Amino acid sequence: MATLKRWVLRSRPQGEIRPENLELVEEQVRDLADGEVLVRTVYLSLDPTNRIWMSDQDQYMPPVGIGDTMRGGSIGVVEQSRSGRFKQGDLVNTGLGGWSTHVVANEGALFPVPQIPGVPVTAFMSVLGATGLTAWFGMCDIGKPQAGETVVVSAAAGAVGSIAGQIAKLKGARVIGIAGGKAKCDWLTGELGFDGAIDYKNEDVGAALDRLCPNGIDVNFENVGGAIMDAVVDRMNNYGRMPLCGMISTYNDNDRPAGPKDFARVLMHRLTIRGFIVTDFLPRAGEAMAELIPWVASGQLKWKVHVDQGLEGAMTSLQRLFTGDHDGKLLIQVSPEP
Amino acid sequence: MATLKRWVLRSRPQGEIRPENLELVEEQVRDLADGEVLVRTVYLSLDPTNRIWMSDQDQYMPPVGIGDTMRGGSIGVVEQSRSGRFKQGDLVNTGLGGWSTHVVANEGALFPVPQIPGVPVTAFMSVLGATGLTAWFGMCDIGKPQAGETVVVSAAAGAVGSIAGQIAKLKGARVIGIAGGKAKCDWLTGELGFDGAIDYKNEDVGAALDRLCPNGIDVNFENVGGAIMDAVVDRMNNYGRMPLCGMISTYNDNDRPAGPKDFARVLMHRLTIRGFIVTDFLPRAGEAMAELIPWVASGQLKWKVHVDQGLEGAMTSLQRLFTGDHDGKLLIQVSPEP
Repeated sequence: MATLKRWVLRSRPQGEIRPENLELVEEQVRDLADGEVLVRTVYLSLDPTNRIWMSDQDQYMPPVGIGDTMRGGSIGVVEQSRSGRFKQGDLVNTGLGGWSTHVVANEGALFPVPQIPGVPVTAFMSVLGATGLTAWFGMCDIGKPQAGETVVVSAAAGAVGSIAGQIAKLKGARVIGIAGGKAKCDWLTGELGFDGAIDYKNEDVGAALDRLCPNGIDVNFENVGGAIMDAVVDRMNNYGRMPLCGMISTYNDNDRPAGPKDFARVLMHRLTIRGFIVTDFLPRAGEAMAELIPWVASGQLKWKVHVDQGLEGAMTSLQRLFTGDHDGKLLIQVSPEP
Repeated sequence: MATLKRWVLRSRPQGEIRPENLELVEEQVRDLADGEVLVRTVYLSLDPTNRIWMSDQDQYMPPVGIGDTMRGGSIGVVEQSRSGRFKQGDLVNTGLGGWSTHVVANEGALFPVPQIPGVPVTAFMSVLGATGLTAWFGMCDIGKPQAGETVVVSAAAGAVGSIAGQIAKLKGARVIGIAGGKAKCDWLTGELGFDGAIDYKNEDVGAALDRLCPNGIDVNFENVGGAIMDAVVDRMNNYGRMPLCGMISTYNDNDRPAGPKDFARVLMHRLTIRGFIVTDFLPRAGEAMAELIPWVASGQLKWKVHVDQGLEGAMTSLQRLFTGDHDGKLLIQVSPEP
């Protein structure tokens, strides 16, 4: 009988995640019932929202229960099947399969990973997965950049930010990214074609925004929260839009993050702030994919993954999201591609 | 030659308005040029935004200049005319005619006040003026209450709030108002038909919201800011909408008002916050009037004015907005109706 390994949430982090919060357990894979499939996890997605799910703060889905497998998106390959829909060797998206080497799932919870010539499997864990959909809906449905407008993206070298900024460029906007460190900023302005980049670790963000956004800011794609958000909001133009995608700078805090310091600006400049979660948009995923797939296939939309090897290191890998010690979308390769 | 009196801004208030900030000056009315009209002010509108215009903080139109007539909306009667469009005795809306007994205006800056049987002139300074349009666009265009949803209105016994709440009722929502004092709360639940009212001066707002909004809050029509806003935002449901109409609790502060204390709620519950100013909607005023006029004429939409007599007392009258010592829309009657 096969065994699996999975990370179990043992306690909720207070501040930064600590080793005692998660435990790697090993156990036998249970027998399959009719309609069930055993999937060997190939790629596991690590995302800022993992930290939210570990807490019991008010959030958009129930937190991971103490004693439950840590939640996470994954793609895997079918090893055994008692389903008529999937056969051994099929590549499948397990949704939120979790931090586990294997997943037993009902056939109804799985969907096939499409094969597109020249597009690697990791694209479906990134630019053509939840990451790309988050960027597309946040930018196109909420931010709605018009040609010639100025768009600022925070955490711009991150998985979502790097795609969101490029989408705004493809829509004809001027795009300024905020990221940590010279290498990331160079990647934004060099390879991705951003019009400017601000290294928040070494620059005064407000002064840099004044320099790079002489006509103010029309769209703020907000990923970070805190002082960086305040600096951007303070420079937003009349009728500016702010898709609120995340506030990663605050996720290790025990206090709830505060809103913009100058909320009068929202009133005086008639700003729209809208929080969003990609899952709400999944029924409309086709609209986004209709633009994203051709952009990816043609190379107009660039994307990057950082792949760490092995589920054992998942906790260490997750830290990279908070230290910024990675580029683009962060994945763990749990087992080889088929 | 006729004389006029007008209030001139002499200095900007720091905190509460003080007598030295404004001066009442008397001067001769100048001769009319071709196309000009002399209007005797009948009603002057006092609004929270007056306090904003007196400051030089970042705002939605230029502040009143030092030495300029204090800005304010008014209706008056034509006393002299060198215009083919207006004749002596006509009742006209002067737009932002200002705190003055008389206004010399070009015919292009005036528009006639319509006469509707049974509807008094003061309605056009209230429920059928900027006040009613503010309530209608904020509630119908941004708040969009659905039948059965729960709507909270702060400053609910105020000019805009009392109309906004009734509009939500007419759209089929459950409406809870927040106001200061038992008399105002009784007016809301008695005469205006609100489903509940919270006396913020004598009740714990959070506890009262918990009691009166057992299914959470779908729309927050925000007029107040500060701690009351926080208490409402903390109870907003998924996909809640927050038209941000004003933050009167903060207008006498020298610091800019802060955003919601728990901004994570905006993300987790996918809230939309939108600041708005009624002037942006004036091109669409017809849409609002098409609903407001029948509601007013039929008595379905109730409204109240508090009329102080005499331009001389304008500064004292304006204080009522901040102490709450008035009901409904606050006006000054500067001279008799024609």
